[in-house]
Amino acid sequence: MTGILYGVGLGPGAADLMTLRAARLIENASVVAYPALAGGDSFARAIAADLIAPDAQEIIMDVPMTVERAPAQAAYDLGAAQIAAALDAGRDVVCLCEGDPFFYGSFMYLYARLADRYQVEVVPGVTSITACAARAGMPLAARNERLTVLPGPLPADELRARIDGAESVVIMKVGRHLPKIRTVIDALGLTDRAVYVERATLPQEIVLPLAQAPEKAPYFSMILLTKGADPWL
Amino acid sequence: MTGILYGVGLGPGAADLMTLRAARLIENASVVAYPALAGGDSFARAIAADLIAPDAQEIIMDVPMTVERAPAQAAYDLGAAQIAAALDAGRDVVCLCEGDPFFYGSFMYLYARLADRYQVEVVPGVTSITACAARAGMPLAARNERLTVLPGPLPADELRARIDGAESVVIMKVGRHLPKIRTVIDALGLTDRAVYVERATLPQEIVLPLAQAPEKAPYFSMILLTKGADPWL
Repeated sequence: MTGILYGVGLGPGAADLMTLRAARLIENASVVAYPALAGGDSFARAIAADLIAPDAQEIIMDVPMTVERAPAQAAYDLGAAQIAAALDAGRDVVCLCEGDPFFYGSFMYLYARLADRYQVEVVPGVTSITACAARAGMPLAARNERLTVLPGPLPADELRARIDGAESVVIMKVGRHLPKIRTVIDALGLTDRAVYVERATLPQEIVLPLAQAPEKAPYFSMILLTKGADPWL
Repeated sequence: MTGILYGVGLGPGAADLMTLRAARLIENASVVAYPALAGGDSFARAIAADLIAPDAQEIIMDVPMTVERAPAQAAYDLGAAQIAAALDAGRDVVCLCEGDPFFYGSFMYLYARLADRYQVEVVPGVTSITACAARAGMPLAARNERLTVLPGPLPADELRARIDGAESVVIMKVGRHLPKIRTVIDALGLTDRAVYVERATLPQEIVLPLAQAPEKAPYFSMILLTKGADPWL
């Protein structure tokens, strides 16, 4: 009997915003896997830390944040091989995923490598977009409104075109793209509506009008633009 | 001391897909509030049922599903007044919300009525979109992909225009709009990529290619169209 691979969403950061199912799977896991940055920091592991058994095997994928894809591909290839070895030995593997595994999550790269050969169960998690909306007090979408999710690294022209025709907009992965995004939102006359959220639900959380946002944004930052003219019943 | 109003996301349906924070708040609640359909059925209450204390006060908002807004507005006015009375008496109120409170959720209507006068805390939940993606085995978005969320009641012309320029698309609240949505997706030549999901994570769940979807869809149904040409690392 081969093991089951669980891709487990951990939510946006606060440990108690993971699901009951996620907590149960992590507590009982004899093998956990997660991505880490060069240097060893893993946001996913930090969220789950209190639940991981002391004697659990840990498969750490060191994923370099480079523009070229080859180094990250090699890291996921290696991680997938280590996970496959555990599954082949009949052990279940719980892969820890910030947010939701299928929403801009690195678990997709493991899924692509392993789902055709192993049983994989994806446990959805609270995404950063609803966590940021909750913390900013800004409903995302109601009734027949549309919601558009845009990654911050998109070119300025494309961001501008996509925001211009949209209702509610969420811009993810702001990070070093903050100055470009600010310029786009300013040019559209929407700065007054825009809210900046950094590390939502964590002790270091920041929620500010975009005009007051810091100069430098971390990767885990977001801009919310809820444009709906009539969101209220 | 007035009480605190908690808007608590319960996730997509399976009780163990609520967060640890949601479970703790519900278990300790002396007053819970939730919307119900005419006839008394409440999906939100059903998800949380096992956690509600037997002696908790229950504020039930009978929300009619009518096209006119006035009857629903009256129901939320009445519910907000009952909740306000409990808060004024110094009692916290836990409002139960399917999915996430700020993602197409009725909690927004209470928030609009009460957030200026009372302390309100929004606890985000797992949305139906990532739950459906998990169950369908279809990642929603990776890297620099855009994600567009469209409500099914939108007119056919608008759906077509919005899907045509999009990458990953989620169509919510399919229900009685299924034939119209099918026609739009067929006309765009995208039926082969479309997956239909009904009551995700519940025992009655259905996941099927759109071409094999049933004739009649319930309100809690969704169509996923992940168009990203290169979602994989």
